Amino acid sequence: MAKLPKAVSQLIESFERLPGIGPRSAQRLVFYLLHNPEERLKEFADRLLALKKETVLCSRCHQISETDPCPICSDPSRDQTKLCVVEEPLDVIALESSGTYDGLYHVLHGVIAPLNNVGPDQLYLHDLAKRLDGVKELVIATNPTMEGEATALYIKEFLEQSSQVDVSKLKITRIGHGLPVGADIEYADGVTLKRAMEGRREI
Amino acid sequence: MAKLPKAVSQLIESFERLPGIGPRSAQRLVFYLLHNPEERLKEFADRLLALKKETVLCSRCHQISETDPCPICSDPSRDQTKLCVVEEPLDVIALESSGTYDGLYHVLHGVIAPLNNVGPDQLYLHDLAKRLDGVKELVIATNPTMEGEATALYIKEFLEQSSQVDVSKLKITRIGHGLPVGADIEYADGVTLKRAMEGRREI
Repeated sequence: MAKLPKAVSQLIESFERLPGIGPRSAQRLVFYLLHNPEERLKEFADRLLALKKETVLCSRCHQISETDPCPICSDPSRDQTKLCVVEEPLDVIALESSGTYDGLYHVLHGVIAPLNNVGPDQLYLHDLAKRLDGVKELVIATNPTMEGEATALYIKEFLEQSSQVDVSKLKITRIGHGLPVGADIEYADGVTLKRAMEGRREI
Repeated sequence: MAKLPKAVSQLIESFERLPGIGPRSAQRLVFYLLHNPEERLKEFADRLLALKKETVLCSRCHQISETDPCPICSDPSRDQTKLCVVEEPLDVIALESSGTYDGLYHVLHGVIAPLNNVGPDQLYLHDLAKRLDGVKELVIATNPTMEGEATALYIKEFLEQSSQVDVSKLKITRIGHGLPVGADIEYADGVTLKRAMEGRREI
């Protein structure tokens, strides 16, 4: 039986390891790349190598950055009394592009998910308490999923029990839940509608 | 506004260029790779570089191969009187794994698609006539799409008009169309049913 050259099947294997890419898509991607000029492949390879070499995690907020501390942590014009906890680096980018938040961030790099063997120790949670000196509001902006909600609750209880934090001086808030802008009430799920009712405000 | 490190955004751009990968999937893939160990990234990069360096197109059938001629073209036990024209290298692999064909192949690397500016000159068609010496049957196994059908017709007419080929001695066949095994007549489309009726055989 005819086989694919080793160079082709190995690259297919590398693509298959990526999330959401199955054997058929991996084949298609590799045969697409075969029609690319060699410089394009070299550029792709160089960028893969640069990914880890040219980035660091900010030692304060754990955001992916070129510098340590990252541009947000080292910007004195940001509101140092607000700290927003998010799951992933991309959440910071999304919140920043919304332009509604001017405080600092803390990236957990995950959520507590017992089914996937992710406990609090696997997250960047250990140094959160140390960062709360002078912070007046802690916004917990984990995703509105089961894991995100559980993590938010865990953080609240963890800080209340911590001897390092005076929770009486700290306002802990959760990012608002409800209908996304442009949504249709008719098609909204029950839990979202319940949250939207609970979160109603005077106009 | 916060921006992603250059190494991250450039790699996202490289992934976005691949077919079927949009901006969101590209972001997700890059952040997945950030959590990979550096050796894994190096392996991926090396394989990208090896893709073109360690493969050649067979000068006879234009299949992707480690050697020239490819294992199929250099195998004397294959039936040298049959030649099967296919669109892409993966079609050869699929036909080989079906185990029903023992002749030689000719890979076009595409189909005639005027809407995408692909004419006969962009395909490996020019040397097809030269390969027909001693060939008794030419199986045209382009895909049963509009472009594949048009290409099959073009090849037939091109060979009939060619002075190099004696078509009276050459049987030109088209791969069979009809219902795929396991399909349901109830859900089959009209064109497929028409082809299945036309292609009916005595049992």
